[in-house]
Amino acid sequence: MRDLVIINARIVTPVGHSALKGDSMRELLEIECGGVIIRDGVISFVGPMEELPAYSELYQVIDAKGKCLLPGFVDSHTHMVFGGFRDEEFQWRLKGESYMSIMERGGGIQSTVNATRSASPESLKEKTSEFLRRMSAMGVTTVEAKSGYGLELESESKMLDVINDLAHEEDPFIRIVPTFMGAHAVPKEYKGDIDGYVRVIIDEMLPAVKDKALFFDIFTEKNVFEIEESRRLLKAAREAGFRLKLHADEIVSLGGAELAAEMGAVSADHLLHVSDAGIRAMAEKGVVATLLPLTAFALKEPYAPARKFIDGGAAVALATDLNPGSCFSGSIPLTIALACIYMEMDIREVVTALTLNGAAACGIADSTGSIEAGKSGDLVLLDFDSYTALPYYVGMNCVKTTIYKGVVVNENVALPA
Amino acid sequence: MRDLVIINARIVTPVGHSALKGDSMRELLEIECGGVIIRDGVISFVGPMEELPAYSELYQVIDAKGKCLLPGFVDSHTHMVFGGFRDEEFQWRLKGESYMSIMERGGGIQSTVNATRSASPESLKEKTSEFLRRMSAMGVTTVEAKSGYGLELESESKMLDVINDLAHEEDPFIRIVPTFMGAHAVPKEYKGDIDGYVRVIIDEMLPAVKDKALFFDIFTEKNVFEIEESRRLLKAAREAGFRLKLHADEIVSLGGAELAAEMGAVSADHLLHVSDAGIRAMAEKGVVATLLPLTAFALKEPYAPARKFIDGGAAVALATDLNPGSCFSGSIPLTIALACIYMEMDIREVVTALTLNGAAACGIADSTGSIEAGKSGDLVLLDFDSYTALPYYVGMNCVKTTIYKGVVVNENVALPA
Repeated sequence: MRDLVIINARIVTPVGHSALKGDSMRELLEIECGGVIIRDGVISFVGPMEELPAYSELYQVIDAKGKCLLPGFVDSHTHMVFGGFRDEEFQWRLKGESYMSIMERGGGIQSTVNATRSASPESLKEKTSEFLRRMSAMGVTTVEAKSGYGLELESESKMLDVINDLAHEEDPFIRIVPTFMGAHAVPKEYKGDIDGYVRVIIDEMLPAVKDKALFFDIFTEKNVFEIEESRRLLKAAREAGFRLKLHADEIVSLGGAELAAEMGAVSADHLLHVSDAGIRAMAEKGVVATLLPLTAFALKEPYAPARKFIDGGAAVALATDLNPGSCFSGSIPLTIALACIYMEMDIREVVTALTLNGAAACGIADSTGSIEAGKSGDLVLLDFDSYTALPYYVGMNCVKTTIYKGVVVNENVALPA
Repeated sequence: MRDLVIINARIVTPVGHSALKGDSMRELLEIECGGVIIRDGVISFVGPMEELPAYSELYQVIDAKGKCLLPGFVDSHTHMVFGGFRDEEFQWRLKGESYMSIMERGGGIQSTVNATRSASPESLKEKTSEFLRRMSAMGVTTVEAKSGYGLELESESKMLDVINDLAHEEDPFIRIVPTFMGAHAVPKEYKGDIDGYVRVIIDEMLPAVKDKALFFDIFTEKNVFEIEESRRLLKAAREAGFRLKLHADEIVSLGGAELAAEMGAVSADHLLHVSDAGIRAMAEKGVVATLLPLTAFALKEPYAPARKFIDGGAAVALATDLNPGSCFSGSIPLTIALACIYMEMDIREVVTALTLNGAAACGIADSTGSIEAGKSGDLVLLDFDSYTALPYYVGMNCVKTTIYKGVVVNENVALPA
């Protein structure tokens, strides 16, 4: 691994080893003309150019020429491993078909479960690998990936094996954080017997996959896993050694946010219909609110109340929710545009949400998510002098160079000023 | 120029040499497994594989392997030549600053006019060229480009020269249709003397630029060029040999659509506040309604009434409006997502709007915009079997290969199924 120096960059980064909450999300460190040194994949220096230490001529040097350097983006919520596509179903939905009608026509999550169960690990790996390449081109250096389209031990394990295989490839270009989400839905085999499926997760799946995933995630929702079942599963997962995430208050206000706070979850996600009490509880307990604007956009739903979270002192992360059903999109640029234009987030808050707070939602804010000595050399160099270009270039990719552990892993065509 | 054969494609195309109106926008020709032959840049055959004529082994062959082949996209409304950027101003707007306040702080169109006047032709050419490359990667094979940031003869000419130079480069990868838009705004030199600037356009500019542009376009709007001034300018432009376009009914309902019909304009564009009478007049006279959803999205404005136009028998085109102020975006994928999800357009209507009707809005539907023998070999091969992937893959690029005049001009990384 060659060492890397970036010179003449406008460095912009949040600072810290945990999520920034409330107003502090806007407190970015900005160095007008700075340099970064990365040794053995780890940042060893960041500061103004005049303080840059001497470096060996063996270092690779990137002259940023005044362009903006940010921490690599963290996409902390995806369902990126899946069989099949659901574009036909998307058409039905656009024509106004109800969720029930779509299910009856063979759509919905069960169709992805069927396709994923029958897919080979190789085909899943190839498809996921391509999504990862596209993410890298948009500046993502860390991504979370969930299982949850198997809903039986063998297929859930297969998904987690695909994720772990991709995470440990040679010449890695992206960090992958694996999440076990057997509690994504109740499979058709257990229709009418949720309790039976809960027992399968607790008794069979949790022990079997405990070394394959860092997080346990659950779809806490009316008529899926309600509060009592969720609490039972989350407790069991916590005891088995998993860190916790929840899909909370997405469709109805069920108290998922409050449960996340009660259980000491790392993050609660979606939160379109969160209660004020839920926001307060999450802020108090330091649960990261992971908001997923692409899903709201694709479903024509109202956006999650980002301002209420931030103004209420909570930490907000932004992620794509890439999945084949509700949100087949991994667009970081559109996520940023929606957050700034439609959720009234300040661009500095968005930068924090997509970097340090995303890393915190993945439980790794001590080692990535900001440009600080001792952290991993995960960086994006924009094609623009200022990060204010990110929402301005609406839906378009502003990233020129993606750097992962001090290695240039993607270079886009430049956009000259 | 090598000849090209595309085999095993799912061919989808509108058919015709003029804009499709109303319900006929949904009538696409679909060939489940077809082939296309392109000789000397022109389509010589399109049909099912079993009817494909023999072709010489000298032809380049692309096996589409069942992927969807569409006509190349036409972006029929852009302001892609400009100096500077306005990302700072975008921040002010997000914070709720009024248009007047932004103007007073040195923002607004005049700031782009200043930057464009002082820019060298080389720098404008380099910047525009990069936008064109990005468009090509999104499947655009024809783009319209307007002047209108000079607002004085010398700078307007400079912009048109840049456009024409790019249009006539060696190894072209995209067709550029030049539009003269000296009537984009009243420059500061003529503040309070609109009539004086109208005379300059008619007496000095029109004769001087008549060989540099196919179209004349005007910003018909309250407090800019109102109906009477617009009529006067449009008549003069028509007499000078230009075809006509209007920015109509964008901010207020002024009667721009009706004027476009009266003047026999090729297209009227924006139309967020079009009257029902305006829609009827445009449908009757065959004026293409060019809708620009990215601008509405970026400005948080209501979308133009696409359904009213189509259900009222009018022809609709979709375009990006790429410009440094109201809409710095050239995203074809986001345009499609907005049209399908937020404007309730059928995906077949969207395909017609972005191909044949876009070509009609550029006055060249006889030679491009559909996959038909005798037309230019302008095609896009998607990464998916069906064009229903276009809105489904929200905000993401579905295009694998862009073909212009029978030559592969862009190849994206594939997304395996």
